[in-house]
This record gives sequence, structure tokens and C-alpha cells, in this order.
Amino acid sequence: MIRIAIDAMGGDFGPEPIIEGVVQALEEKSFLPILVGDKNEILSLLPQYYINKVEVVDASDVIDMADQATNALKRKESSIYKAVELVRNKEADAVVSAGHSGATMTLATLRIGRLPHISKPALATLMPSIGKNKTLVLDVGAVTDCTPQNLYEFGAMGEAYMEKAMHIAHPRVGLLSNGSEDSKGNALTKEAFKLLKNLRGFVGNVEGKNIFDGSVDVIVCDGFTGNILLKTSEGVVTTVFTLMKQYIRKSLPAKIGALMMRKKVFVNMKKEVDKDEYGGAPLLGIDGCAIISHGASNAKAIKNAIFQAMAYTQSDVNKEIESLLSHKEG
Amino acid sequence: MIRIAIDAMGGDFGPEPIIEGVVQALEEKSFLPILVGDKNEILSLLPQYYINKVEVVDASDVIDMADQATNALKRKESSIYKAVELVRNKEADAVVSAGHSGATMTLATLRIGRLPHISKPALATLMPSIGKNKTLVLDVGAVTDCTPQNLYEFGAMGEAYMEKAMHIAHPRVGLLSNGSEDSKGNALTKEAFKLLKNLRGFVGNVEGKNIFDGSVDVIVCDGFTGNILLKTSEGVVTTVFTLMKQYIRKSLPAKIGALMMRKKVFVNMKKEVDKDEYGGAPLLGIDGCAIISHGASNAKAIKNAIFQAMAYTQSDVNKEIESLLSHKEG
Repeated sequence: MIRIAIDAMGGDFGPEPIIEGVVQALEEKSFLPILVGDKNEILSLLPQYYINKVEVVDASDVIDMADQATNALKRKESSIYKAVELVRNKEADAVVSAGHSGATMTLATLRIGRLPHISKPALATLMPSIGKNKTLVLDVGAVTDCTPQNLYEFGAMGEAYMEKAMHIAHPRVGLLSNGSEDSKGNALTKEAFKLLKNLRGFVGNVEGKNIFDGSVDVIVCDGFTGNILLKTSEGVVTTVFTLMKQYIRKSLPAKIGALMMRKKVFVNMKKEVDKDEYGGAPLLGIDGCAIISHGASNAKAIKNAIFQAMAYTQSDVNKEIESLLSHKEG
Repeated sequence: MIRIAIDAMGGDFGPEPIIEGVVQALEEKSFLPILVGDKNEILSLLPQYYINKVEVVDASDVIDMADQATNALKRKESSIYKAVELVRNKEADAVVSAGHSGATMTLATLRIGRLPHISKPALATLMPSIGKNKTLVLDVGAVTDCTPQNLYEFGAMGEAYMEKAMHIAHPRVGLLSNGSEDSKGNALTKEAFKLLKNLRGFVGNVEGKNIFDGSVDVIVCDGFTGNILLKTSEGVVTTVFTLMKQYIRKSLPAKIGALMMRKKVFVNMKKEVDKDEYGGAPLLGIDGCAIISHGASNAKAIKNAIFQAMAYTQSDVNKEIESLLSHKEG
């Protein structure tokens, strides 16, 4: 049975939605949750029926969103430290955390360790697309200043993840740039371009709009650009719907029209851009599996993050990453 | 009378929409258009009534979108070269071009020249916002690899433009980063942050979502990031409306609802994100005025680009840029 260590304390709303998510996941799939955090609180929130379906590891400390990620290594009694340690000691197959993402990334990288050939792990997220499949963008926040080699490794990790965990036959990998021509790019991406040519699936430079049009499966960028891209996209979606609401409010026919569109259009669209549908972003490049959920995760997000951790663990992603990077010279 | 040199040949659709835009502008405001391009073609497209309201400068060559910007300096018979030269020789106050933007930027920078204290001019564009005013983002494509000093100058140029040309009382200037805390940023922005503190209106780091929420008036970034941000935003808008149409098509009530929302919601929203409403992006930092319109500009876009050139010329933007940067040590 797959064992998933879960930081029960880290989210913005405390342990409640996390434990609720674990319960929802157990209703659908068979796995062993190892809940890490305040034992009494966890047990008090857990329905009686589930008490012997989980393990609980007591942890007295919680790393707060305001804490520095760099202190994480010293906070050995924190729930996230102990959850990561379970993976390091092979007592769990994966860790899921909605807590301090910097702390989780630091601990996962340093305590679980990197895969061979990986200089820096990357955070990868699936973006909505009008194509058949979603597009994986990496890095979206682990490595702010990247080298060309980092970007090359991100490309290999993205290719491996989409093929092995998401079952895309021949993932197409693009390098995010300021134009699609080979000559485009900044100093960093121009060097990375040369290295990425070694990847089977590399299709060259792609533009911001290609994130959403299904033309590629993986988009590689540095973590600074990835963060901006993510928050810009969220900002645009919020703006479009805020403007729409403002105009709807001013007109009665528009109000009625919006009601008629609600169920079949707006509800479905919301689902399409709903982060809770995937639940979290995998940290690729570590010698294990860590799924990082956003702090405001609800039960559904946690449930889906657990399912993602299970799919990852059952797949050959890490083996494929190693294999792709060891064949670089081929 | 303000004299505006207009590259009549450079747009994707040839001289027709450009001349139509000039005519529309003349119907509303008084200025002297100097149309540069194939004289016979221009005169054949110009309604009789307007023939003595414009000047025409003959140019036998056109720089194509496929041409290299670096060759622009040698193409002395091209419409854009001759249009820029009119500003250089003080025969025109500003130049408007929907042609090859790289060529226009190169020529404007090298032939018209930079303002004192400016190391690199930047392309600035207004982005839609749910705030009262639009947000100016720069650079969006002139300088791919920036130094901290470049970003500092961009900040000063943006502040000057919003204050003098857009009449915003105390423009707030933000530095685009991967988080709003002072400690966030990559190697480039961390250094730029220190310099930008010298600016009156500097409010610190801002995130991608702040482009659209009206929390700042100016957002500074390097041209690589700016290009990605622009194309990502366009991609998100396209995706949202494509998804919406797909869902609407599948449901009759939704179809009727969409019709009821059309006039008061969708038409207004389209206007809100319509690039043709501003017509072009000013190249800030040159010792003159150049407005760069997108290649697919229609008549309305050209008209608005001309109005923007007039407003720029009548304002003290360039003087203010100089003044802000000469007081750096204060």
C-alpha cells in the first residue's frame, strides 16, 4: 500500500480541511495516510471510522507563512520537517504539504536529496489549455536565478513527468521566449536553447500565448519568470470576470442572460481554471515525491494532491528523468 | 501646428488603413500629417478633399516584417527611415509607425538619439485595469537583457510619462517581482530595487496580478519579461473567451443568455481590452517622440496613435525624464 506523509498543520486554515481531504481521498482510493502534526488535534478531527485507517506522527511545531524558509532545517519538531523525514527514511513514499512552500522545497531538496544529474529541483504546475491536455510549466518558483543547465534539466524533468505520470505519448517541450524564432531569447535562454536541443521532444522557442493553446505539453522557464507568468494569468482571469460582473450589474437583460449562462458556462469554466482540481504542484528532481499545495487548499485540493502523489509514486517519472539526463551525450 | 511623420507603408495591410486613419484623425483634430511612402499610391488613396491638408514624402523602399532590424540603418530609401529622418531633422515633431517595430526602434534610437542620462530607450504599453486608470508597463520589448541601471531609467521614464502625458498626479511606480516583499526578486531586480528607491513614486516590488488591479500606475520590468507578460495576458483573454464560446455553443439557454449579455457586457469588455483604443506604444527615452503601433493596426488604431503622438509632443515628458534622472543624487 502506498504511504503518503501529510503535513496536517501547514495550511492557511489549520488541520480541518486537510483531514477532511484525507477522509475524502480514503473514500475513493486505498492508501495509508501518515498524518503529521498535533496528535490530539488530529485525532479529535478524525471521524471514528477512519482512526485505524491512518497513522499519526506527533509534531509539536508548525512553520508559519511568515517564517524564513532558511530556518526550516533547524525546526526539527515541525510537522513539515517530520513529514519530509518520513520520505527520507523510506517510511513514506511521498509527502503532501499545503504549508510554507519555501520550507517544503528546501527540506525536500536537502533532506530527501536530488536525483543524479539534477542541479536544482523545480516546481511544476499544470495550466489550463484549450488543447486536449493541460500544459506543464516549470519552474514556477523554486529557482529564481537559473543557469542554462538548470533550464535544460527542467526540460528533461517536464518531458519525463508528462510522459510517465500524465501518460502523454510524445510530450512536446518548448522554451519560453520573447518570440518563436530560434534567434529570439535573452542571454540565459539562448544558451539553454542549445542544451535543450538534446531533448527528444524539444520544439524550440514558444511564446506566452502558447501556454494555453495546446501547441506544446511542457514549457520551460526560470522560476522568476514562471512566478510572474502564473500571477499575471491569475490576474487576467480575475480582471475579466470582475469587469464582466461590473457590466452585468448595470443591465437587467444582462443579469438574466448571465443567469441563463451560469450553469452550463460559468460553472464549467470555473472548474476548468480551478486549482483544486489538481491539488498541487510536484517538486520535480528530488529522489522521491513531494506535492506542494497552495496554502488556501480546501479538502478537494488535498484529496487531489494525494491522488497526484499516488500517481507519481506509481509511475517511473524519477527513473525516466535520470535516464533522459544520463543519455545527454547520445 | 504639430507635424506628425507617418510611415504610410509599414503595416500588415499596406497603406489603406493607415491613410484612412490619418483622414479620421484630421476630421477630429488639427495637425499636419507628413505621409512617407509611395507617393502615387498614397495620393491615389487620399480623398480629394484632404490632398492639400497633408504633405507627402516619397520613399521607394519598405522594410518587411521578415527583414532584420539591424539592416534598417542601410535602407535609407525605406519609408520608416525617411519618416524617422524627418524627426531627426526637426521637420516633424513625432513619428508614427505600424511597420517593423524592431527597425523603428533601432532607427528612432540611433537617428533621433537618446535623451541625456538614458542608456536604453524602452517600449511602454498601457494595460487594462479594474482601477480608475490603466497601468503603464515598460519595457515590453526594446531591451531583452537589462542592467539594474536600465530598469531604474525605465522607472523614471514611466513616472514622467504618466504624470506629464497621462496627467496622473503622483504616479506610483512598482518593480515587477516574484513577490511583493522587499526581499523578493532575482539578481537583476534586487540591484534595480536599490536604484529605484531614488524615485519619488517608487512603491517597491509588485506582482503579476498588480498589473490589472489599479494598485500602481507604472510597472517596471526587463523587455524579455515584459514581452512574455504581454503575450501571456493576451493568451489568457483569448482562452477565456474561446472556452466561453465552446460552452455557449453546447447549450440553448446559454446561447440566449449570451445574446442578452452581448451589447451591455461583451461589447463593452471588448472595448476595454481593445488595443486600437490607444493605438500604439511610445518609445520612451529618445530625444523626440516615436509611437509604435502593431502591424495589424486598423484606421482607428492609427488615428489614436496620432492623437497619442500629439499629446506626447504637447507635454513635457522628455523634459521631465531628464529632470528626474539628473536629480538622482538628490
